[in-house]
Amino acid sequence: MKFDPAQIREAAKEDFDQTWQKGGEYLFHPAVNEQYPRISCHYGTPHPIFDTISKLREAYLRLGFSEAMNPVIVEAQEVYRQFGSEALAVLDRCFYLAGLPRPDIGISDQRIAQINVILKRELSADEVEAVRQILHGYKKGQVEGDDLVQEIAKAINAHDALVSQILEAVFPEFKGLKAEATSRTLRSHMTSGWFLTLSNLHYRQKLPIKLFSVDRCFRREQAEDAARLMSYHSASCVIMDEDVCVDDGKAIADGLLSQFGFQKFRFQPDDKRSKYYTPGTQIEVYAFHPALVGSATKYGSGWVEVATFGIYSPTALSQYDIPYPVMNLGLGVERIAMILHNSQDMRGLSYPQFQADWELTAREMAQMITVDKSPSTDTGRAISRAIVETSIKHGDTPSPCEFLAWEGQLLGRP
Amino acid sequence: MKFDPAQIREAAKEDFDQTWQKGGEYLFHPAVNEQYPRISCHYGTPHPIFDTISKLREAYLRLGFSEAMNPVIVEAQEVYRQFGSEALAVLDRCFYLAGLPRPDIGISDQRIAQINVILKRELSADEVEAVRQILHGYKKGQVEGDDLVQEIAKAINAHDALVSQILEAVFPEFKGLKAEATSRTLRSHMTSGWFLTLSNLHYRQKLPIKLFSVDRCFRREQAEDAARLMSYHSASCVIMDEDVCVDDGKAIADGLLSQFGFQKFRFQPDDKRSKYYTPGTQIEVYAFHPALVGSATKYGSGWVEVATFGIYSPTALSQYDIPYPVMNLGLGVERIAMILHNSQDMRGLSYPQFQADWELTAREMAQMITVDKSPSTDTGRAISRAIVETSIKHGDTPSPCEFLAWEGQLLGRP
Amino acid sequence: MKFDPAQIREAAKEDFDQTWQKGGEYLFHPAVNEQYPRISCHYGTPHPIFDTISKLREAYLRLGFSEAMNPVIVEAQEVYRQFGSEALAVLDRCFYLAGLPRPDIGISDQRIAQINVILKRELSADEVEAVRQILHGYKKGQVEGDDLVQEIAKAINAHDALVSQILEAVFPEFKGLKAEATSRTLRSHMTSGWFLTLSNLHYRQKLPIKLFSVDRCFRREQAEDAARLMSYHSASCVIMDEDVCVDDGKAIADGLLSQFGFQKFRFQPDDKRSKYYTPGTQIEVYAFHPALVGSATKYGSGWVEVATFGIYSPTALSQYDIPYPVMNLGLGVERIAMILHNSQDMRGLSYPQFQADWELTAREMAQMITVDKSPSTDTGRAISRAIVETSIKHGDTPSPCEFLAWEGQLLGRP
Amino acid sequence: MKFDPAQIREAAKEDFDQTWQKGGEYLFHPAVNEQYPRISCHYGTPHPIFDTISKLREAYLRLGFSEAMNPVIVEAQEVYRQFGSEALAVLDRCFYLAGLPRPDIGISDQRIAQINVILKRELSADEVEAVRQILHGYKKGQVEGDDLVQEIAKAINAHDALVSQILEAVFPEFKGLKAEATSRTLRSHMTSGWFLTLSNLHYRQKLPIKLFSVDRCFRREQAEDAARLMSYHSASCVIMDEDVCVDDGKAIADGLLSQFGFQKFRFQPDDKRSKYYTPGTQIEVYAFHPALVGSATKYGSGWVEVATFGIYSPTALSQYDIPYPVMNLGLGVERIAMILHNSQDMRGLSYPQFQADWELTAREMAQMITVDKSPSTDTGRAISRAIVETSIKHGDTPSPCEFLAWEGQLLGRP
Repeated sequence: MKFDPAQIREAAKEDFDQTWQKGGEYLFHPAVNEQYPRISCHYGTPHPIFDTISKLREAYLRLGFSEAMNPVIVEAQEVYRQFGSEALAVLDRCFYLAGLPRPDIGISDQRIAQINVILKRELSADEVEAVRQILHGYKKGQVEGDDLVQEIAKAINAHDALVSQILEAVFPEFKGLKAEATSRTLRSHMTSGWFLTLSNLHYRQKLPIKLFSVDRCFRREQAEDAARLMSYHSASCVIMDEDVCVDDGKAIADGLLSQFGFQKFRFQPDDKRSKYYTPGTQIEVYAFHPALVGSATKYGSGWVEVATFGIYSPTALSQYDIPYPVMNLGLGVERIAMILHNSQDMRGLSYPQFQADWELTAREMAQMITVDKSPSTDTGRAISRAIVETSIKHGDTPSPCEFLAWEGQLLGRP
Repeated sequence: MKFDPAQIREAAKEDFDQTWQKGGEYLFHPAVNEQYPRISCHYGTPHPIFDTISKLREAYLRLGFSEAMNPVIVEAQEVYRQFGSEALAVLDRCFYLAGLPRPDIGISDQRIAQINVILKRELSADEVEAVRQILHGYKKGQVEGDDLVQEIAKAINAHDALVSQILEAVFPEFKGLKAEATSRTLRSHMTSGWFLTLSNLHYRQKLPIKLFSVDRCFRREQAEDAARLMSYHSASCVIMDEDVCVDDGKAIADGLLSQFGFQKFRFQPDDKRSKYYTPGTQIEVYAFHPALVGSATKYGSGWVEVATFGIYSPTALSQYDIPYPVMNLGLGVERIAMILHNSQDMRGLSYPQFQADWELTAREMAQMITVDKSPSTDTGRAISRAIVETSIKHGDTPSPCEFLAWEGQLLGRP
Repeated sequence: MKFDPAQIREAAKEDFDQTWQKGGEYLFHPAVNEQYPRISCHYGTPHPIFDTISKLREAYLRLGFSEAMNPVIVEAQEVYRQFGSEALAVLDRCFYLAGLPRPDIGISDQRIAQINVILKRELSADEVEAVRQILHGYKKGQVEGDDLVQEIAKAINAHDALVSQILEAVFPEFKGLKAEATSRTLRSHMTSGWFLTLSNLHYRQKLPIKLFSVDRCFRREQAEDAARLMSYHSASCVIMDEDVCVDDGKAIADGLLSQFGFQKFRFQPDDKRSKYYTPGTQIEVYAFHPALVGSATKYGSGWVEVATFGIYSPTALSQYDIPYPVMNLGLGVERIAMILHNSQDMRGLSYPQFQADWELTAREMAQMITVDKSPSTDTGRAISRAIVETSIKHGDTPSPCEFLAWEGQLLGRP
Repeated sequence: MKFDPAQIREAAKEDFDQTWQKGGEYLFHPAVNEQYPRISCHYGTPHPIFDTISKLREAYLRLGFSEAMNPVIVEAQEVYRQFGSEALAVLDRCFYLAGLPRPDIGISDQRIAQINVILKRELSADEVEAVRQILHGYKKGQVEGDDLVQEIAKAINAHDALVSQILEAVFPEFKGLKAEATSRTLRSHMTSGWFLTLSNLHYRQKLPIKLFSVDRCFRREQAEDAARLMSYHSASCVIMDEDVCVDDGKAIADGLLSQFGFQKFRFQPDDKRSKYYTPGTQIEVYAFHPALVGSATKYGSGWVEVATFGIYSPTALSQYDIPYPVMNLGLGVERIAMILHNSQDMRGLSYPQFQADWELTAREMAQMITVDKSPSTDTGRAISRAIVETSIKHGDTPSPCEFLAWEGQLLGRP
């Protein structure tokens, strides 16, 4: 509590030690519900995936790569250009984008009658024409779907709730709408985007071009499980240069992963021979992390597969008129995050809120337990402290026994 | 170049000053193409959008918000629960997800014959059965699309390139595949996800719950322009507490934006009355940034609209069995990034590689200009330096004139 | 406030719009002192100097420099090795370190008598011997100064306050102690440390060695002013390599400063010719920052001197047996911070708490103004809102006038 | 190497698979010295102490503390105000600052004669007077020590090297200079500064005031060892508020340390009862870190002492006219860094460059081993690859044996 410095200075001048000893009298004693760990110093916690993204970005920047944003929406046609005969298999795993069609809606006399009933008045010819124009504009894409209600409400001077009711009751065309697929897809990995990006850079930037991107990708999985999510994050980079080679992939893998505590690396040709890589250059990176040694996972040896790299095939690059070889290395953010956070389930790490098994530490539980009623006055709190201290002091005395814990005035009476 | 410390120490002991003066003799003189600014100290540059995301995350964390990841794929049904009669208008702006169907493919005798021609041998009955099983498994989702070629290749012991050719030539079903839409959508803003997340937290965490997320959203635009992208980033937060109110929105807007240099704030009720907000609580945030004052944008006054907040409607919350009011504030990352980077076009800021007008600074141009041929020996470089120095020294002499720039031995001859 | 989702769901099923409209009834209305801007969302703010240090570290790391810690305490002798005949002038600007001597204290009979008086008992011979040993150990450096009181208190079984009193009254030797200077100095710039560090690295690391350090330096100024502090921060780097040259300094200056928004650079030989640099290589860096243009400082042209670099002299390097040339670039952190924060006074930027002129923004003042008494019940707050609303509504009515603002029960009575 | 996209596109149109297979022909094959791990992707590494400082700053900011800079130079008098009778013991562990005196130097005729000999000419009366004025100005502090040589050189129009020689030969007063101690000290911990800072804030900022600082402190140790450095870093914070109490210290310790992976906490009253803390409030924080469990340190139990906190004594606060209690918590940065980096020696962690035992990983050694001579032409490299491949292929053949590894033209001859 607040004190008077002048008075304490005076007292200390006379007897420093005694004044110092009495300092405790100014201490605040919180009620039981305001004591640690019930009170805590709250701080915001980062999400493990986004935290890992942030660390990966910094690691790439420190390796001298510049950050790019690649298109997340890619025409299916691009997949054909990049994958050749493999395209169909790849597209099977892609999400396509679809959208609701905009119905062509006429206003018959019968419909006008229905509207009049809801409005409890008759629409004028001008108003009917205005509504017709709006519906036509909506069909043509000139009026946005989320402006439709507001526009009609303004045109016929009605409350927007009423208009919503009209659209629902009078125009069943809206209700039965079914989305229609387009030829656009969501990228299933970052490579789709790199071809587009590099085809626009190779002729106007100095080589080498070193770029990275850490961003969302989408895979159309039959189901999500501990190791697969429909939307995941890829941390991908490219080097375009005349003399790029497999050793660059090894050096980048080493330079990137050693920033995360990995200490040794093994490189193994991939069984899968993707058509967008030059044959023989698609390589899996295995890395050793000391913190994994002895862990109760399948990585107890400390070794884990963490990345893949390869040299883009001249065949695929030529489709984009790119005349230089390109090294591409990519890794799954969720996978690295699982290793760093000792997690067994990608879903639990990404979406803890949806997990049925919810764990509380002893401290979190202690923080949630409060006493229902506790003294609210200084005297009340002093009594409660006195009782606790007396109990501790005489805890070993065999009962029955009786001790004075506190004596004083309460509510002005002794 | 390397020198001999012992020898220099000796010389300095005799004549410090003269030895010091001669230090320049050990200097390396780079050839013209290796001189600044042709050589530069390259560093990786962050992307303005991802950099802004990183700053927004830190700003939310410093305000005591914890980070969450919300589902990016949301059933259309959820939009109905959250928006009521407004849902249709919202869904008009959403992308639905679609995917390629898996055709039911039989193997007739005629097809076997076609395969045999390509393979230049006859498939055995066992092989035919194996292929039939694989195609059936694929239809059932037990064989992934991107494993199909490899599985068949293994079953009939053929090269995967041949198998690709077979699939293309013999099974036209694959070619004609058209994606089919599902009832799943990509979130058009973060709110879709917050309802799902909060409905799983309100009964097991201490209030207040303060969460944020900065992540991708998708809007089905007719077209992209300087202010609209189909995929953008939302920086959104929620506070769930018994006594949450409009003033919390103002305080958060102030606390968040003042970390980005905004200094004054104005709050204005939004004309749009979204159904997932309590009526009267949807508020637009205008903020003043000193760096905007006098800029050649429409924000030359320094004032700009940067965020919107509101209190989720009990009607919408009740659909998710959430019994507490929730304040929600959101802002567009691209918009903030444009303000911070003084940009007029969201496309140019996000995807500079796709912009036709490519700007180079004087320094970048200087770095790209090199001399085609330059001396590669020390003597050669000394001669070139001598010529430059002589030219500078006698530059004002009227021509014709002649000066000795360098004298010495070249290739062992004087 | 908390609500009942089941009940609201029921109501919405019957009449969605009306239920939605009534959502406002669940809103919390804070008392006037709990309204924005009196409530604010507090966040911790970084200090501009330490924030700039953090940015400089990141900028150096992104340029591929590794971070080192150099000794902050340096023997005066090292300055002689590095600066030769210039050393004296440099040492004039250095702080030397000094320390209190440890007095040789005997315990005479007279002193024992004095102690006995204070203790109100007689020390035994063993106790006297123990105290003598402790004082001897203290003199020898075996007993630390801050353990002295505790050790004696233990030895003679007395309260430490009493012992403090004894030391003060009986041993005046302590009181008169004067610090004595040593031959150790605090580095006045980072170069002192680089020579020591590099002399231990040149033979065991691969070249080039690229190191940086951002840390405190000390200058013995006659007085501190707007541009000079006795303790400031230097952001310094070195490159040791066979072919290091002046162009490397230009490239590093450019690479480092362009990360802080500087756009153009000019290099000018320094008039000062420090002896630890090779003659002709000491160069001042001027940089152009667009945010400075038109500012009310002496840098209104946008150009400002921000760094100095040079090639260490072989003469100085040889003193440390270093056989390779070294490029060294350094800049003052406080100077960069002043430019970035538009500050005119280094003291105000570093130590705002000690500045007499304390500025408050309008918002900070608004946050400090509170109403002394405000209603604490829901009804009370409703009345106060009603009065405010009624006043606004009828504000233009000429007085005298009277309006009903609120009607209802108070304390159970109408 | 660069290729021709048009040509490859053409080839792929005719035979995709064969063209894809031939992609490897465009691969660059680096010479043995340019292969991984000899080439590596270098990145700058942060220093463990400064990295820990950066993390501590962020952790404090996320707890809502604002950053302050406290004075590093503190008058000895302040220590007396804060520590009372304990001050002497504290000052015994402090460094005092000292500085070289500026000698009063006259110019006798004899000295003028000596100067003339060195200059090989006679100084004019004006020049002598000018030198006298400069020496006088230097004594008075109007001429800085590091400007002395330059000023004299200008005044007598002589080379600065000559002037250095004159000062050395003619004015022995400079040589014999001994530093003299002042009453200023370097702070031995952060508390010295907090009292100064808070005494300027308590009357002009809203409570609570929450500040932190992570910065250098200095202790005059007899010697440095694995656990003690003369200059170390303290990470310290204060909360000033009317009702600050011991539970705040516990909550802050928990909130700060749990951000570094500590999971459980134990609080134990400190035996040492510093006079600037209220008696009974000085508490040591022990924390449990899972990564320590089973480590080969004295912390194998996982428990380690990491911080101390207390409530400043009203006696000490009153000396600064501060009327509110203050909670202060501090921890040693080097100690936390040692725990996080599994280090046993503070010197090795701070100054690896000065450690005699220098460890290299297998990878670092591999990077340092290069082949002295390696082929520099494409053909040469192809031959060397062919030899390696042939050796691997026939490695098991018993010798003597002979194989053709490569055949072709060399230097234009078969």
